[in-house]
Amino acid sequence: MTPQGEMFDVKDGVLYIEDVSAVELAERFGTPLYVYSRGAIAARCREIREDFLERWPGRAAAAYAGKAFLTPEMARIIEREGLMLDVVSGGEFFTALKAGFPAGRIKFHGNNKTKAELEEAIGRGVGHIVVDGTDELDLIEEICGRLGKRQPALFRIAPEVEAATHDHITTGKRDSKFGVPMDEHILYPLIGRAIASESVIFEGLHFHIGSQLFDNAPYLEAMERTLDVVLEIHRRFGSAVPMIAVGGGFGIRYTAGEERRPYLYFLDPLMRQVETFCAAHGLKAPAVGIEPGRSIVGEAGVTLYRAGAIKDIPGAVKYVSVDGGMSDNIRPALYGAEYEAVIANKAGQTASDRVTVCGKLCETGDRIVDGALLAEASRGDVLCVFATGAYCYAMASNYNKIPKAAVVLVDGADASVIVRRQSYEEMIACEM
Amino acid sequence: MTPQGEMFDVKDGVLYIEDVSAVELAERFGTPLYVYSRGAIAARCREIREDFLERWPGRAAAAYAGKAFLTPEMARIIEREGLMLDVVSGGEFFTALKAGFPAGRIKFHGNNKTKAELEEAIGRGVGHIVVDGTDELDLIEEICGRLGKRQPALFRIAPEVEAATHDHITTGKRDSKFGVPMDEHILYPLIGRAIASESVIFEGLHFHIGSQLFDNAPYLEAMERTLDVVLEIHRRFGSAVPMIAVGGGFGIRYTAGEERRPYLYFLDPLMRQVETFCAAHGLKAPAVGIEPGRSIVGEAGVTLYRAGAIKDIPGAVKYVSVDGGMSDNIRPALYGAEYEAVIANKAGQTASDRVTVCGKLCETGDRIVDGALLAEASRGDVLCVFATGAYCYAMASNYNKIPKAAVVLVDGADASVIVRRQSYEEMIACEM
Repeated sequence: MTPQGEMFDVKDGVLYIEDVSAVELAERFGTPLYVYSRGAIAARCREIREDFLERWPGRAAAAYAGKAFLTPEMARIIEREGLMLDVVSGGEFFTALKAGFPAGRIKFHGNNKTKAELEEAIGRGVGHIVVDGTDELDLIEEICGRLGKRQPALFRIAPEVEAATHDHITTGKRDSKFGVPMDEHILYPLIGRAIASESVIFEGLHFHIGSQLFDNAPYLEAMERTLDVVLEIHRRFGSAVPMIAVGGGFGIRYTAGEERRPYLYFLDPLMRQVETFCAAHGLKAPAVGIEPGRSIVGEAGVTLYRAGAIKDIPGAVKYVSVDGGMSDNIRPALYGAEYEAVIANKAGQTASDRVTVCGKLCETGDRIVDGALLAEASRGDVLCVFATGAYCYAMASNYNKIPKAAVVLVDGADASVIVRRQSYEEMIACEM
Repeated sequence: MTPQGEMFDVKDGVLYIEDVSAVELAERFGTPLYVYSRGAIAARCREIREDFLERWPGRAAAAYAGKAFLTPEMARIIEREGLMLDVVSGGEFFTALKAGFPAGRIKFHGNNKTKAELEEAIGRGVGHIVVDGTDELDLIEEICGRLGKRQPALFRIAPEVEAATHDHITTGKRDSKFGVPMDEHILYPLIGRAIASESVIFEGLHFHIGSQLFDNAPYLEAMERTLDVVLEIHRRFGSAVPMIAVGGGFGIRYTAGEERRPYLYFLDPLMRQVETFCAAHGLKAPAVGIEPGRSIVGEAGVTLYRAGAIKDIPGAVKYVSVDGGMSDNIRPALYGAEYEAVIANKAGQTASDRVTVCGKLCETGDRIVDGALLAEASRGDVLCVFATGAYCYAMASNYNKIPKAAVVLVDGADASVIVRRQSYEEMIACEM
């Protein structure tokens, strides 16, 4: 009935998340409420371990992309699940360290890391930096020289592959702000410098082609171009490329039209492509790294809202408004993202009322689900919007001065707060 | 050279905001930094007083729409400038009261006010509630009955006018989530109830047709429909309509293609239309209320950034990346909003380098200005992006775990922090 069906159940007409009633969660913790299933997160991590890390021992690495959803508790979960962690800012790095995540298992990304961020990361022994361009290498060398450190680093390239997804989240094109352009006068001098550098340890190459992808073809295409770079690096510098990181972007199921594909579907062909190419050219096969974010947490999270005003406009549309909106989930407004929803306290009823679920913010674009099929809604109902685990809490704002919602983690019959609901006082604590 | 030219100057090649160097502001307070000109805010408020409130004494009212930018200091400024305040949530109401703004001068908006918000607002003596639909009147009557209060209330209608602006910010259409539909079987029974109610004082009608408008025609069209409703209310109930609030939406200059029109351009024709119509029908002319937000603060605010990585991709595009992005200004990603920028420390140089100003967030949509014309940028330059006073700080997120930027108010040669920069600790204070 819903995305990631295994984490849901319906008992006595009520939606359950693992073994906890969604209605009880709403009553106990208030709404809007983000709810994550520990079991669903674990299931994805286990799949990565079994079908990738353990299948290709020594040749596979996986880091959770924290930008999808990162809190101290989430960092602890990722550590327990045996993955590495990707961060994209000083704030994410800070959050991870605060949770006790080992710096050496963190990879630092970003198209414009500040000097302060690099100093902090290198100083605290970050495991890997994904270098985005020539002048970042200048900065790193300067900092490493000063701190007497040698920093392992991957180099992000823009493989010029067009992936079929929203323009905002296509990242591998030539005109991308990310990565080193595939221009031999830019790329190879930079790699040559890195290989020769006393400040960095050249760990390999990185690409990321986009998000919410269902087809392995663009990954294979990007890998093909990257393997050509591997060969050229060998030819020019006599050096091996220890790793190729292929980013994330593995699509999830937001709505009935989509189906998450197993990691195997993407990764087995990639691994064989690397093997085949390297065998043919007498090269040592680089390890392959992945950076899943959305595919680990996206379907594992839902948002619970309380229905408020219901407005049936004759000949137009029926609105069911909820007590949150684009402040807790900006993806519909930002990307035209689609979601499915159910009335948690009417989960056993036939859903035959076509409505628009809108938020309470003063903006027409503040919609959560256009054309949702729900049981007939009443004020006070608990709405559950599925697959909001990625890029919802992460992108939450205080627009309209709405405090940030709480986050609850459900594990079997237990539910615990991992992010407290922000109070009005806390929301404006910095305002004078 | 720039939007709201009177607040800017260039001295010795450096951009000044009022009498303070933008470069010194960046050094002293760090970046990204929102900077507001007290003088520019005052100029807009003065225009509203002189060309509207004082021009039509007793017949004109103006409330600043806090959702554009609201902090305690901003609320104090609005009070000193003699305007009322519009809020759209319990959080905005809280912020205003905390600043000492008198509750009686506050108008409470929203398509889905929660029961808790209404209780708080009514209990604390909010001046006016803009009722959005039938079931909100039920709630208000129940609360007023319980608290023994009588609440002044306007009723928002959807005048079914199409305003030429971004879909997300058109709000007056029939299928809008806002307001009571223009359906006689819905609208008049509601107004009749309100007029007869012992819990509310019927204050009049409200419409808001959209944002960032440059043409007065849709206002006049919406007013025409609203005046028909006024006449029908008189005919059905023998009651006058004390006020018509026409919302905000007055466009500002973001880029060279736009020019803010004086309030007079919009308001004089509206006032005369009301007079003419009411004289012709023997009605007492309702007062007219306006709710400007963006037009008061939009051009009065700028954002200062520090330039970081610069990436010139041969045959594609040149990126100048800054140390903020969609976390402090999501409008380009969300609405395709356009801005102009200048390098503050090179404000005297010819701007002939065509670049894309992008942010540091891990997302391709994270751009601030596409095709900006700048002097040649270097790492460390201070970029000033104009007209970011509305809906930037208000919509700021911690995406990528980037702390919220500070806000500084410049008044002549003085600069004072009105919002402290969030620390990493404060940013994750609610996270466990």
